[in-house]
Amino acid sequence: MPYVTVKMLEGRTEDQKRALVEKVTAAVSATTGAPPEKVTVFIEDLKKSNYGVNGKLQSDV
Amino acid sequence: MPYVTVKMLEGRTEDQKRALVEKVTAAVSATTGAPPEKVTVFIEDLKKSNYGVNGKLQSDV
Amino acid sequence: MPYVTVKMLEGRTEDQKRALVEKVTAAVSATTGAPPEKVTVFIEDLKKSNYGVNGKLQSDV
Amino acid sequence: MPYVTVKMLEGRTEDQKRALVEKVTAAVSATTGAPPEKVTVFIEDLKKSNYGVNGKLQSDV
Amino acid sequence: MPYVTVKMLEGRTEDQKRALVEKVTAAVSATTGAPPEKVTVFIEDLKKSNYGVNGKLQSDV
Amino acid sequence: MPYVTVKMLEGRTEDQKRALVEKVTAAVSATTGAPPEKVTVFIEDLKKSNYGVNGKLQSDV
Repeated sequence: MPYVTVKMLEGRTEDQKRALVEKVTAAVSATTGAPPEKVTVFIEDLKKSNYGVNGKLQSDV
Repeated sequence: MPYVTVKMLEGRTEDQKRALVEKVTAAVSATTGAPPEKVTVFIEDLKKSNYGVNGKLQSDV
Repeated sequence: MPYVTVKMLEGRTEDQKRALVEKVTAAVSATTGAPPEKVTVFIEDLKKSNYGVNGKLQSDV
Repeated sequence: MPYVTVKMLEGRTEDQKRALVEKVTAAVSATTGAPPEKVTVFIEDLKKSNYGVNGKLQSDV
Repeated sequence: MPYVTVKMLEGRTEDQKRALVEKVTAAVSATTGAPPEKVTVFIEDLKKSNYGVNGKLQSDV
Repeated sequence: MPYVTVKMLEGRTEDQKRALVEKVTAAVSATTGAPPEKVTVFIEDLKKSNYGVNGKLQSDV
């Protein structure tokens, strides 16, 4: 606790995900007072063909 | 806003997903008053081996 | 199946939710081929104080 | 209803998932009073490279 | 890990939730091999006015 | 995109949530390259009576 889920378009590198987990954990810990070892981060990779905005599938845009 | 997530068995074609995003966005916009460009749709593909009903894995049914 | 979740700002009336469920179910059924009785809709009410865009809590905007 | 989602590291066998669905459905039915045929279970497979604890991506640990 | 979410209609007592957490944790631990102290359970209470099946808001049924 | 959900025990003040949204948005933007105006944050408040660890409801602990 807290549990953080980041949903974003697929294609980020493992280096980007490593940095994301590090920095988001620090931000959550600093602002909620939870110790870093209690912060869990889940990343969800989204395909453009599973993502729609304004009625349009983003793989078409 | 609104954010819509549709979880369904994998195997739908991109044409079906395109139509789904278009029609669901229209339905949400018409009934909530949100403009279509503010409606986001996420699709989640579910494997039968990750789906259980009545205690039975659906890949066995 | 399919399972649809609609997250939106709180404050919609029960009439709006009733219409939302009806129209979204019809849209999902028509485009996926699932019969309407297999379509489930969950609505999640979001408070502005639990919603941030561009780094700003929306209860402040 | 109820709808149960189990998020866990990928790599479980189909036999483990079959047992998980069976036993979790029984546990939910027994404690909530819902009949087993009304219990739905979704499994989400998580990659270690999408999972962070204590600021560290678990694929590095 | 694993992380379990149980979404169900509101109105269950704390005793039912206590039993649910105990029994679901045991079922998940026994079938996945994860130790009980690594199993997390989240309960989500659903209002009938936020739940639709077959195009009908369940608060109307 | 990205969409971030932070689930945590209820009781944080609006000031804490404001800081959380600001700092998490900055962390996500810096590490993914997404502009801040494309980062959305949802906060979910969790009751202790809806949260279980190690088979124990946290309202009992």
